[in-house]
Amino acid sequence: MQTIPINSDRLLSDLRELRKIGGVGSGVVRPAFSDYDMEARYWLKKRFEDAHLDTTIDGVGNVLGRSRKIGTSILLGSHSDTQPEGGWLDGALGVIYGLEVARALHEYDNTSQLSVDVVSWQDEESNFLSCLGSRSWCGTLNPDLEKLAVSREGEKLEHALKRVGLDNTPRLKIEENRYLGYLEAHIEQGCYLEEASEKIGIVTAIVGIRAFIISFKGEQNHAGTTTMKRRKDAATAMFETAYRINNQFPSLVNETTVWTIGNATVEPGASSIVPGAAELTLQFRDQDERILDSLEEEVRKIVSEIENKTEIKVDVRPGREVIRPSKMDSSFQKHLSKAAQAITPNAWRYMPSAAGHDPMVIHEKLPCGMLFIPSIRGISHNFDEDSHEEDIVLGCEVLTSAVASILMSE
Amino acid sequence: MQTIPINSDRLLSDLRELRKIGGVGSGVVRPAFSDYDMEARYWLKKRFEDAHLDTTIDGVGNVLGRSRKIGTSILLGSHSDTQPEGGWLDGALGVIYGLEVARALHEYDNTSQLSVDVVSWQDEESNFLSCLGSRSWCGTLNPDLEKLAVSREGEKLEHALKRVGLDNTPRLKIEENRYLGYLEAHIEQGCYLEEASEKIGIVTAIVGIRAFIISFKGEQNHAGTTTMKRRKDAATAMFETAYRINNQFPSLVNETTVWTIGNATVEPGASSIVPGAAELTLQFRDQDERILDSLEEEVRKIVSEIENKTEIKVDVRPGREVIRPSKMDSSFQKHLSKAAQAITPNAWRYMPSAAGHDPMVIHEKLPCGMLFIPSIRGISHNFDEDSHEEDIVLGCEVLTSAVASILMSE
Repeated sequence: MQTIPINSDRLLSDLRELRKIGGVGSGVVRPAFSDYDMEARYWLKKRFEDAHLDTTIDGVGNVLGRSRKIGTSILLGSHSDTQPEGGWLDGALGVIYGLEVARALHEYDNTSQLSVDVVSWQDEESNFLSCLGSRSWCGTLNPDLEKLAVSREGEKLEHALKRVGLDNTPRLKIEENRYLGYLEAHIEQGCYLEEASEKIGIVTAIVGIRAFIISFKGEQNHAGTTTMKRRKDAATAMFETAYRINNQFPSLVNETTVWTIGNATVEPGASSIVPGAAELTLQFRDQDERILDSLEEEVRKIVSEIENKTEIKVDVRPGREVIRPSKMDSSFQKHLSKAAQAITPNAWRYMPSAAGHDPMVIHEKLPCGMLFIPSIRGISHNFDEDSHEEDIVLGCEVLTSAVASILMSE
Repeated sequence: MQTIPINSDRLLSDLRELRKIGGVGSGVVRPAFSDYDMEARYWLKKRFEDAHLDTTIDGVGNVLGRSRKIGTSILLGSHSDTQPEGGWLDGALGVIYGLEVARALHEYDNTSQLSVDVVSWQDEESNFLSCLGSRSWCGTLNPDLEKLAVSREGEKLEHALKRVGLDNTPRLKIEENRYLGYLEAHIEQGCYLEEASEKIGIVTAIVGIRAFIISFKGEQNHAGTTTMKRRKDAATAMFETAYRINNQFPSLVNETTVWTIGNATVEPGASSIVPGAAELTLQFRDQDERILDSLEEEVRKIVSEIENKTEIKVDVRPGREVIRPSKMDSSFQKHLSKAAQAITPNAWRYMPSAAGHDPMVIHEKLPCGMLFIPSIRGISHNFDEDSHEEDIVLGCEVLTSAVASILMSE
C-alpha cells in the first residue's frame, strides 16, 4: 500500500476557519439554510475552486466541486450544516477531508491524474428534511415530503429556498457512470475507538432502525375502591412489557446492538386513578437484519403473552419509517483497511455506524464507504464534541491513501 | 335485637327531592358552595326543622340539626356536596338516612325519647378543602391550609364564604360530652357486596393511604451511538422498579389491599434519546398499618437493590400527607352487626372502606361507625352511580335499629 502525503496544517487550518462560521464557544450553530450555513457554503465553494474543482451550489444548497481530470471519479464529502447546538467536526470533518484528499492527490506526482469530486450535502441534520441534499442528488427526494418540510423554527422549505436565493437554481443529479462510489469520513460519535486506543473505524454498515409505539388499553378506575382482581391497569401491563423487553433482548443481540424505550406515558396519570391507557416508544438498531427481525419477533411474543394473561388490549404500530441496514461496499472496506494497517498498524477496527449518515441514502445508487476517527469521550451533537488533532490528521492520511488505492486499482 | 320501623316512602321521596337540586340527567352537580349546594343546605335545614331538630347552618356551611331530647345523643349524617359530576347517593344517602332515623325513632313509642342529631358536613368532596366541614367542627382545620384553599374553579374559600353570606356566621364546634359517637351510612362504591349478593357492609376501618414519588436520575444520551454497557438509562430502572413492585407486593398483602402506580414520566421522552430521568407515583391503601409498613419497606428494598446494581440514583419521597387507617368503634360495629343479622340474616359482612369519608377526621374526637349498602356495578363519582331501592330501604332499617340499640344500651 502506497501512502500519500497530505498537508496537515492546511487541513487543520481549513477546519478551524470553517469552525468560525457560526461558532459559539467551542461549538457551532449552523443549521441548514441559516445565514451562517449559507456563508459556510459560499466559503466552501471558494475553497473548492482554489483546489481546481468546478464548483456549483445547486438548487437545494449542495456544494459540489467537480474534478477537471479525465477518467472515473470518486465522490468524497459530508455535510456542513449542523445540529441546533452542534459540534465543530460533525459533518465539517468529512467535507474538509474530501477537499484535502483532492488537493493532496493533485499535488503528489503519482496520483496527480486521479479524479476526485468533493461535496457538502445540505441538511443532513434534518432541520427541514433529513438528508435533503443527498436525496435530491440521488433522485429519491419525495416531492410530497418536500412540500411539507418545515424547519425547527417553523419556516417552510420553499420559503427558505427563496430567502437564500436558490429557488430558481437547478438541482444537480447524480451523473451516471462518473463515479466508482462515495466515501465519507466522520467522527465516531461513540467510544469504541477511544476505549480501545484505536485510531480508525472502518464502517461495515450503517445500522438499520426499527421503531414501535406500543399502546395499552385497560379500564380507568378508582384507586381506592377497585380491588386488584377487578383492575384492568394499562400501566401495569406497560411496565411488565418494558421490563421484559429490557430483560429478554440481551440474549438475542450482539455487542453493538442498541435498543431504547425513550418515552412512556400513562393516562390519566393521576396518583389516585387506576390507569386506563399507557404507551411506550421502543426503538432498536443493528447492522444485521436478522437481529432486527428476531427483536421484532420477541416484542410481538411478549405483547401477545401480556394480552393472553391480562384483559389489556395491546397495539403495536410502527413508530417511524423502517430504516434498513446500509451495507458499505466490501471492496472499499478492503482498501480502507489496507491504508489503515499501513498507517496505524493494528490500531483500527471494522465497526457499524450506530448513527445515520448520507450514505444511507447514497448507497442505493453508488457503492459507499465510511471511515471513523475517535471522538473524545464519545460526545457529539453537543458543543463539547472534539477529537485530538493527531487523530484528525491520521484519519485524513488513511482516507487519502485509500482513495488513491481505489482509483489506481481501477 | 329490636327492629324499628321506618317510613320508606318518606325516605325515598326525600332522596329524590334532594336529587333534583343540581340534578343533571341521572347525576347531580352540587359542588361545595355552588348555588345548588347552598339551595340543598337550606332545603335540608327546613327538612331537619320539620323533624323537630333545632337546625343551624354554620360558618363553613355545615347543616346541624340538634335534637331537643334529653340525654346523650348520637350524631348521624354525611355530606350533601357532590363531585363535579357526582352520583345522586354519594353523601346524600347518609344525610337523609340520619334524618329518617331521627324521625323514625321519634315516631316509635319505644324509642321516642332517644336523642339523635343529624348533620350534613360541608365539602367532603374537596372542592376547596377535603372534609372542610368536619375538620372545622372537630377543631382540626389548619388555618394556613384554609387561607390557601381554592375551589376547582379557582375561587378562594374566603371569597366563597362571603358570596354565600356565611362570612360572619359563627362556626359550630363539637359539644363535649353530648355524643356517644358519630355514625355514617354510605354507598359502597365498590363491588364486594354486589358480587356476594350481600346487603350490608359494616366498616371495620377506613384504609390508610401512603403515597410516594420515586425519581430516577441517570444520564441522557444518544440512542444510536451509546452502547448498552455505557448507558445510565433512568427509564429502564423505573420499569424494573415498577415491575418488581407489582410482582412482589402480592405476597405481602391481603385481599383488600390495593396499590396503584398512577403515573410515570420519562425525560426528555424522545424516541432517539436514552432517558436521563424518570419518575413514577406509587400509592397503597390498607386498613392494617403493619401491611402499609411492610409495603413501604419492600419499596425501599427494591429501590436500594436497583441503586446497587445500576448507576441510577433513585429518590423516594412522600407523594402526599400520610393518612393513617381510621379504626371504626368496635362496639358500634357490634350493634350494627346485630341489626344487620336481625334484618338480613347472613347477608352482611365486615369490610374496610377503601375510599375516604368524614369519619377519618371525626374518629379522632368521637367513636365512629360506618355502614355500606351495595352499589350497582360499584360505580361512583359518576352520573351512573346507583343502588337498588330495596337496598336503600334495608340499609336505613339496619341503621335505625342499630342506633336505637346503641342509645338504649347506654
